Amino acid sequence: MSIHEECGVFGIFGTHKDDMAGLCYYGLFSLQHRGQEACGMVVNDDGVFTVHKDLGLVGEVFSDDVLAGLPQGNAAIAHVRYGTTGSNCKENAQPMTVNHLNGRLAVAHNGNLTNTLSLRKNLEQDGAIFHTTSDTEVICTCITRQRLKCSSIEEAVSRACASLEGAYSLVIMTSTKMIAVRDPLGLRPLVFGVREDGSYVAASETCALEAVHAKGIRDVGPGEMIVFSVNESGKAIYESKKIICEKQPQRTCVFEYIYFSRPDSVIDGVSVHQSRITAGEILAQTYPADADIVIGVPDSGLDAAIGYAKRSHIPYETGLIKNKYTGRSFIAPNQQLRSDTVRLKLSPIKSVVSGQRIVLIDDSIVRGTTSRRIVELLREAGAKEIHVRISSPPFRHPCFYGVDIDSEEYLIATHHSIEEIAKMIGADSLAFLPLHALEKMTCGRGYCCACFDGDYPVPIPKDMRKDRFEGNIQEGV
Amino acid sequence: MSIHEECGVFGIFGTHKDDMAGLCYYGLFSLQHRGQEACGMVVNDDGVFTVHKDLGLVGEVFSDDVLAGLPQGNAAIAHVRYGTTGSNCKENAQPMTVNHLNGRLAVAHNGNLTNTLSLRKNLEQDGAIFHTTSDTEVICTCITRQRLKCSSIEEAVSRACASLEGAYSLVIMTSTKMIAVRDPLGLRPLVFGVREDGSYVAASETCALEAVHAKGIRDVGPGEMIVFSVNESGKAIYESKKIICEKQPQRTCVFEYIYFSRPDSVIDGVSVHQSRITAGEILAQTYPADADIVIGVPDSGLDAAIGYAKRSHIPYETGLIKNKYTGRSFIAPNQQLRSDTVRLKLSPIKSVVSGQRIVLIDDSIVRGTTSRRIVELLREAGAKEIHVRISSPPFRHPCFYGVDIDSEEYLIATHHSIEEIAKMIGADSLAFLPLHALEKMTCGRGYCCACFDGDYPVPIPKDMRKDRFEGNIQEGV
Amino acid sequence: MSIHEECGVFGIFGTHKDDMAGLCYYGLFSLQHRGQEACGMVVNDDGVFTVHKDLGLVGEVFSDDVLAGLPQGNAAIAHVRYGTTGSNCKENAQPMTVNHLNGRLAVAHNGNLTNTLSLRKNLEQDGAIFHTTSDTEVICTCITRQRLKCSSIEEAVSRACASLEGAYSLVIMTSTKMIAVRDPLGLRPLVFGVREDGSYVAASETCALEAVHAKGIRDVGPGEMIVFSVNESGKAIYESKKIICEKQPQRTCVFEYIYFSRPDSVIDGVSVHQSRITAGEILAQTYPADADIVIGVPDSGLDAAIGYAKRSHIPYETGLIKNKYTGRSFIAPNQQLRSDTVRLKLSPIKSVVSGQRIVLIDDSIVRGTTSRRIVELLREAGAKEIHVRISSPPFRHPCFYGVDIDSEEYLIATHHSIEEIAKMIGADSLAFLPLHALEKMTCGRGYCCACFDGDYPVPIPKDMRKDRFEGNIQEGV
Amino acid sequence: MSIHEECGVFGIFGTHKDDMAGLCYYGLFSLQHRGQEACGMVVNDDGVFTVHKDLGLVGEVFSDDVLAGLPQGNAAIAHVRYGTTGSNCKENAQPMTVNHLNGRLAVAHNGNLTNTLSLRKNLEQDGAIFHTTSDTEVICTCITRQRLKCSSIEEAVSRACASLEGAYSLVIMTSTKMIAVRDPLGLRPLVFGVREDGSYVAASETCALEAVHAKGIRDVGPGEMIVFSVNESGKAIYESKKIICEKQPQRTCVFEYIYFSRPDSVIDGVSVHQSRITAGEILAQTYPADADIVIGVPDSGLDAAIGYAKRSHIPYETGLIKNKYTGRSFIAPNQQLRSDTVRLKLSPIKSVVSGQRIVLIDDSIVRGTTSRRIVELLREAGAKEIHVRISSPPFRHPCFYGVDIDSEEYLIATHHSIEEIAKMIGADSLAFLPLHALEKMTCGRGYCCACFDGDYPVPIPKDMRKDRFEGNIQEGV
Repeated sequence: MSIHEECGVFGIFGTHKDDMAGLCYYGLFSLQHRGQEACGMVVNDDGVFTVHKDLGLVGEVFSDDVLAGLPQGNAAIAHVRYGTTGSNCKENAQPMTVNHLNGRLAVAHNGNLTNTLSLRKNLEQDGAIFHTTSDTEVICTCITRQRLKCSSIEEAVSRACASLEGAYSLVIMTSTKMIAVRDPLGLRPLVFGVREDGSYVAASETCALEAVHAKGIRDVGPGEMIVFSVNESGKAIYESKKIICEKQPQRTCVFEYIYFSRPDSVIDGVSVHQSRITAGEILAQTYPADADIVIGVPDSGLDAAIGYAKRSHIPYETGLIKNKYTGRSFIAPNQQLRSDTVRLKLSPIKSVVSGQRIVLIDDSIVRGTTSRRIVELLREAGAKEIHVRISSPPFRHPCFYGVDIDSEEYLIATHHSIEEIAKMIGADSLAFLPLHALEKMTCGRGYCCACFDGDYPVPIPKDMRKDRFEGNIQEGV
Repeated sequence: MSIHEECGVFGIFGTHKDDMAGLCYYGLFSLQHRGQEACGMVVNDDGVFTVHKDLGLVGEVFSDDVLAGLPQGNAAIAHVRYGTTGSNCKENAQPMTVNHLNGRLAVAHNGNLTNTLSLRKNLEQDGAIFHTTSDTEVICTCITRQRLKCSSIEEAVSRACASLEGAYSLVIMTSTKMIAVRDPLGLRPLVFGVREDGSYVAASETCALEAVHAKGIRDVGPGEMIVFSVNESGKAIYESKKIICEKQPQRTCVFEYIYFSRPDSVIDGVSVHQSRITAGEILAQTYPADADIVIGVPDSGLDAAIGYAKRSHIPYETGLIKNKYTGRSFIAPNQQLRSDTVRLKLSPIKSVVSGQRIVLIDDSIVRGTTSRRIVELLREAGAKEIHVRISSPPFRHPCFYGVDIDSEEYLIATHHSIEEIAKMIGADSLAFLPLHALEKMTCGRGYCCACFDGDYPVPIPKDMRKDRFEGNIQEGV
Repeated sequence: MSIHEECGVFGIFGTHKDDMAGLCYYGLFSLQHRGQEACGMVVNDDGVFTVHKDLGLVGEVFSDDVLAGLPQGNAAIAHVRYGTTGSNCKENAQPMTVNHLNGRLAVAHNGNLTNTLSLRKNLEQDGAIFHTTSDTEVICTCITRQRLKCSSIEEAVSRACASLEGAYSLVIMTSTKMIAVRDPLGLRPLVFGVREDGSYVAASETCALEAVHAKGIRDVGPGEMIVFSVNESGKAIYESKKIICEKQPQRTCVFEYIYFSRPDSVIDGVSVHQSRITAGEILAQTYPADADIVIGVPDSGLDAAIGYAKRSHIPYETGLIKNKYTGRSFIAPNQQLRSDTVRLKLSPIKSVVSGQRIVLIDDSIVRGTTSRRIVELLREAGAKEIHVRISSPPFRHPCFYGVDIDSEEYLIATHHSIEEIAKMIGADSLAFLPLHALEKMTCGRGYCCACFDGDYPVPIPKDMRKDRFEGNIQEGV
Repeated sequence: MSIHEECGVFGIFGTHKDDMAGLCYYGLFSLQHRGQEACGMVVNDDGVFTVHKDLGLVGEVFSDDVLAGLPQGNAAIAHVRYGTTGSNCKENAQPMTVNHLNGRLAVAHNGNLTNTLSLRKNLEQDGAIFHTTSDTEVICTCITRQRLKCSSIEEAVSRACASLEGAYSLVIMTSTKMIAVRDPLGLRPLVFGVREDGSYVAASETCALEAVHAKGIRDVGPGEMIVFSVNESGKAIYESKKIICEKQPQRTCVFEYIYFSRPDSVIDGVSVHQSRITAGEILAQTYPADADIVIGVPDSGLDAAIGYAKRSHIPYETGLIKNKYTGRSFIAPNQQLRSDTVRLKLSPIKSVVSGQRIVLIDDSIVRGTTSRRIVELLREAGAKEIHVRISSPPFRHPCFYGVDIDSEEYLIATHHSIEEIAKMIGADSLAFLPLHALEKMTCGRGYCCACFDGDYPVPIPKDMRKDRFEGNIQEGV
């Protein structure tokens, strides 16, 4: 699967010293699926910030020693990140921590701005310099500039957000407050809850709340800012504020349901697991197949397969086994054998598939190469017929809001009809989830599906090119 | 799960130079579930042996650089190992390679001898010295001693095996031959096959044959030795020989079916996946439950859950999500939160389990602590009733043939009745697979289930204590 | 020796693509004695900057692989750094590279500003944010702010320097130019030269010019800025400019001669080796001793010992051997033995010192503990008399210009008379270099010796406390 | 310098628990110059052996953590090793620890046997197998075989030694004893001493005794075995025994004096430092030069330079500075610049050498390339005349007793006259130490100088080829 979420955010805010690093560890660990490239956390001990971040998985970056070395604190924010490899990316790890006139600020960001370039140019004209190439530094600078002109950090954040365009779910920490804020369309998820000891938790997904025994309160609304602070009686409280913007309809990224989020998470009130089951059921109803068994491609195709089986009354079976050791360390050692990456990751169970007419459920098709290989493997294992059903519509457009989809030129569905794709991947039949089914999947909540239909809720500037600020390369005068 | 297989073996034997290291990599990778502590391989390039082995996962030990640095060869053997941690274990990594009068020998071993101590003492009296504390060194010494007295390596292996007692599946490589041999009871699995180019492959499981595109020929029989060599016309051939021993009935370790082997493997003619489905079906038949859904504990409980659902006509559901990033790097950072390891690894899907009467299928209960925590998690998520069904009989006895089962004193089933256990883990009802069902699971093949019934097919010497030769500790005179 | 230089800088500027990373490597390697904590370089390939920097020695940070991965370029700057350990210091590694409106800027800095705090506060009031706690980021911000208001980078640097107070030797790189600039007093050294191919090199010491086969042109003068650029005919040229400030007398740090610089370097026209020989000669003349041999404490006491021997006609001998493996990896494993660090680093040669009356030359005394241990070692080895002569005056004051001297409270000479010190270290007699001798050592060039006499050429603000911005700790609002 | 010693050994034997690992650390650290490739130690805690060994410098292999993890003990032996790089060498690290019938044995070895091949063949015919390609494993096997036939370990060692030919200095540890033994010619050094607490120490050089505050007792004699044990009253004692062999004259390796040993060590009663001074004096007397200054090539040429200066009354000067950061991490990054390795390691001090007629003292010439480069550097720095004097005779023969000298074909002195060499390295004159001077250097003690005169005190078997057992490569049948 060559589609990647870019980040997960987590924050915790309490009133007494606790093992905030340990809690962040649990939170990050449960959000690991949102980013495996880098991670970090900032612990706030009464205004003293301690940062640790590095490239690697949560369990690698936060070893026993590192965790033991981090101080206790009353608040902390944390981040996991997916990113392109390169020597520069360590500097782009988050949370970002900066010093400014009125104190210190730490920011964790999930999303992608569409007006980074113009914001940056304006800030530079006003004397700003940038150490990294990340949106987050631009956001930090916007906030601290506003902070000079207004009396509180929440007003500064609110004003700064008014200048941001695109997708952002932010968790921000100052020495005395924590702020969770979500862009006016609510493109990327953000939720908050409370723990038994009264401390508050904000996170990208509900699974991170569960990981630290927090009870979910609700999703942060589109354009909403939740400010966590300590009141006069020393209790942690939260207040909801609107960021400066008109009311807009919710547009949650639908791919959060299809692929990104963990099945046990609930995004904007909708169970991810259930939405996948629903997609499978709709597929069964819309594109039935005369088959003996239904199997799913592990892991993200399994739920839809169960849904398809339920509705079609064709038995659900385990037809493909996933090798659980294919982590980042896995490589395909030489060119001859490299085409076998799929074979090493996925193994058909012969006794299950041999002689069978199979409905095969996967969550998406990007280039088509993986699907072709899976179909081949099943044929080699004796499958008689293979009817491929995809639990999402065909990808046809790039995403500018924080999802790393393959370039359009490689997307098989932009160049080929469904019949052509079926032939290319060797399937006896092929069907994709109809576009209108997304509404049922998301229970009528507003969603963004620009990658499927090209209808971008935030306009994309002409000069916005995905790679504009990536890598090490900058020209000067 | 605190039960561990000790090893997986792999060997390939051809007539022309090929990327044997790459093929071993694929083979080891598919056997990774049999041992995650250490791995290694020896490439044979016309009699020149090159070894690489270290602690770590296959993808860690065999990085791109390491693989590129290994020579082409015409044969190779390889090994994955589970072992207790400790400074000494690097030296115990396999394959073991030794020099002797008539050449060089590499040995990869899966199993556990029961007469290591007496063999070792005898060899020492004859002047042998031992660098490690592993069975494998004892086996090497036995073979090379015999080799001095007889005219061929196969005869030496055969004679050496006559002195070995216990469980062993060996892949042995000399400069010109490869030998696969299995103990007289066939306790640990061993299978061989052939690739399109005529090279032969031997491995612990069929999944490793598939990983290198080898077609399975058959299992190595109990007490059988397969000798791979090159005949006069330069073709790779194999011959079957008996090791010196009387014919005995097959006694394959039944836990290979229940837990160790990969579901897509076929052990002694029986599909592992199918045997687990069967176990689930038998459970459904023998211990029905009045419930709304059937869920399995990922990963090894899922197949039996599907079987239970099938037979009981209660719908199969995904009720627990496994965090796929809980690798070796995962730690629980402090004591308070350590009890939450289970919670971090497994998350219930509330929308599935809430308000439901659940049949929960797991493969085994060792100490009971994990089961109790899973039941708790499901209750917290709203489950109304939880009926636990275990797809194996209760553990009551230690294994001396290569499985690392918890000490008897910790096995919950040795001290408590099933009713007591049910209470201890908080289940509304609890049932284990009946002993006699194992015969159906294994399709009538002979099997060893000493860990369940205490009937040891190879006698256990009184002085055999698991830890006798482990660790760094040796006394001298 | 607990006195540390903070940095070394290096830059190279040419007109055609070359292995600039390799040349920087050589340059840094020869400057390694100026900082062993971290190092880095930025290669400029026609405006494209590639950065690599990390904690560690030059040979560790710039492995074969790293060097091979860096692009060719036409210019590059580099840095070695001494710094306190801590999780934060990786971010303080240099050169620092920033993006601003008019392009990109890389800065390498040796020295210490005295007005960082007030500069920083002013910049923050104007909206600046700071990621690190280093002077260098303040300098970068000053330059880029000025750059918005004036038409060239050299004017911006010049104006920025007008606001800086304290010690700084900077090498600055833009996409098309390189600038070397030294503070108005010339506190820290900076020199430049030219290579056969016409490329220019700037560095902290002449030894770095030699390392890349550059012929020295001259030292950068106090308050001078050398601008390297390409002229219309495509040739690299340099121009000298004054930074905005009145003419002031040279005040080179005298400790560069006594201890920091490499003996083969020539600082402001004076050979470091020769200056040490001179110190030894003056000591011999001023504080003669009736002795059999003269020995030096390796490495930095040896030259003065040769000078003492020459002038006194007492034979020079090798009396102490230094273990050359006492690098950063060396530790003293337990408390009992920790006092033996000196013994492990320095070993007396018994056959040389036994029965002798010895003149022992060292470069300085800080706390006195090392000297006491050396005297003890020599006594144990049989020395009859030990007359300690120190080739610098007694330390009595902290340095605010880039030298990390022990806190005043630990400096033995601030609390004790010379007679007392002699007793404390167990010497039969003790003498320090007279203050006035420094003038001879430096051949009449102006020098700063505030650490000896407390006469600070740049005023020290009251609020300047060494640790003010160190560590991770910042307060906020 | 491409000549390497192969090892250093260290052992300590006491009666009460102590931080033996810490003491070994100090001992190894002081012997680091004898081997930088690998190191290890075995701590004996009442018969329980704990081993730690790895590739790397002492300070790298024995980190704080590792040392803290090693148990207290009553005895320990340790080893530093120089060896060729390669994947196999980790297994060849020492001490070697083996288990045999009568207990456990640890062996640390410095030297090289000349009859390894025939010993090994004999042992293999008797059933022995070998895991490594080192002499040490052969020695271990010889000892344990003998141990089966005789009643004590000391008799077994003695008998085993009777079969060994070549150079060996061994420190051997059993659960209750320590044995130090030196070959009949005493080719490699070995000395022992006692600490204040009554524990005994054996080591390759006296500097290691000093490092642990042990008072030297004497050198182990040629063919002598010192057995350390605990007597009935619980006191550590030592006894001297002869190994089975006729009395032979001492033949200490003369290169220990010239290059290997630390100048502060005393080998067989002769101060290494003094022997180098003597060599310089003899050179001055035999090959005077009309010159202004005498300089030495650091570090090992400095002592002889002082000796030359003394005798010739030409002033001694520091003309070359050695970069102290050229450790193992140092690389020369590309081919163009690789010839500059010498320049990076050694820098002339211009102010010293410019315009001078120089006597340049180095310890040896191997290929001549380094000498040529040094002469060039001095000429570039302005030297008027350069008279090279070498403090050893010309290398003409390989060493089979544990010194890794370049192959004969590369030794410049085997193919060229001294006049030719002078021209090749660009010297105005050149002279080597006369062979007969070695006697004076070593104060009349017997010495081996086969590398200079080809007179091998132990016959070299025809089939002995240096590389015979190195690397991974073994043929089989």
